Amino acid sequence: MTLKEYIIKNIDSEFEGDLPFEFYSKKFKKGAIFTEFEKIEKNGFFLNKGIVKIEIQSKNGLIILDFFFENSFFAPYSSLLSNSHSDVCISAITDCVVDVIEYKALQKAYKHSLLANKLGRIETEKLYLKKVQREKALLTKTAEERYLSLLNTHPEIIQQISIRDISKYLGIQPESLSRIRKKIFS
Amino acid sequence: MTLKEYIIKNIDSEFEGDLPFEFYSKKFKKGAIFTEFEKIEKNGFFLNKGIVKIEIQSKNGLIILDFFFENSFFAPYSSLLSNSHSDVCISAITDCVVDVIEYKALQKAYKHSLLANKLGRIETEKLYLKKVQREKALLTKTAEERYLSLLNTHPEIIQQISIRDISKYLGIQPESLSRIRKKIFS
Repeated sequence: MTLKEYIIKNIDSEFEGDLPFEFYSKKFKKGAIFTEFEKIEKNGFFLNKGIVKIEIQSKNGLIILDFFFENSFFAPYSSLLSNSHSDVCISAITDCVVDVIEYKALQKAYKHSLLANKLGRIETEKLYLKKVQREKALLTKTAEERYLSLLNTHPEIIQQISIRDISKYLGIQPESLSRIRKKIFS
Repeated sequence: MTLKEYIIKNIDSEFEGDLPFEFYSKKFKKGAIFTEFEKIEKNGFFLNKGIVKIEIQSKNGLIILDFFFENSFFAPYSSLLSNSHSDVCISAITDCVVDVIEYKALQKAYKHSLLANKLGRIETEKLYLKKVQREKALLTKTAEERYLSLLNTHPEIIQQISIRDISKYLGIQPESLSRIRKKIFS
């Protein structure tokens, strides 16, 4: 889905014409990096196609904070919002097509555009919900329950995301995930 | 600060007249509950005065997800957004004065009001940032570092929040917090 199609479907069904901010389409190969650690990122991204991961350095090594799938926005969002160096690394798990949105242009549109503010509000609500659900899952669910819930929402992960990455997301060792998978699929 | 003063200061310095949604002021005594577990909450709150805590039932007992201080919005926000039963309990740590905003009225205003959408976007960005900072602190900092950072942002907590509540927020035993405090203040 293109950014414009997404906006018509999710933000304003009557929208036509140009978006209140500029953007351009770009392809990234599997493994490519969108945002490196310590970079000051100036762009947000809308994912037309592909899967993306966001990693952070934790006390116990590199862990995956989040996966992003088709038709969603991603960015080192807290760094964009606070205009600070990125403490995450964002990279492509599969070949990706994205729309690149300059955050400055979006902020300019925020001053006067109802559509831009609706989009910003609704997408931030989604990111917030995702963050809270992950927080609550970590606090209340076992790794097996969290794996099942991930499978439930995104069954495609089995084909497209490595066991190593899934276990880095669940916060467990790859061997523990293999045991969980054996139990579930046997 | 009243809600209107807050909006002029933080959202639109030229704002005058009526807000695009209704609200009313209400007092809550220390210990009073805003939102109970399992309630379907219909309101959001702006905290004029006081301190509020949000608790959730974790695998290891009741823990505190967040404190809210003067001049901030709070709600069982993920339940409001997804129109579901609250899995958190929100209560007053001190006597509180709040502005109560009916979420339905706010949603109605979101349809056409630039100001309402700006407010919703900016406040959700703040909640998101707070959530991410807490997530990153839990992943990368020790309990002592997290306590120092809380003290730094809100030195008033020492007088106003019990050691029991602070330790429930830090995710450690009260005895561990006492040891940390002894070390810091000696």
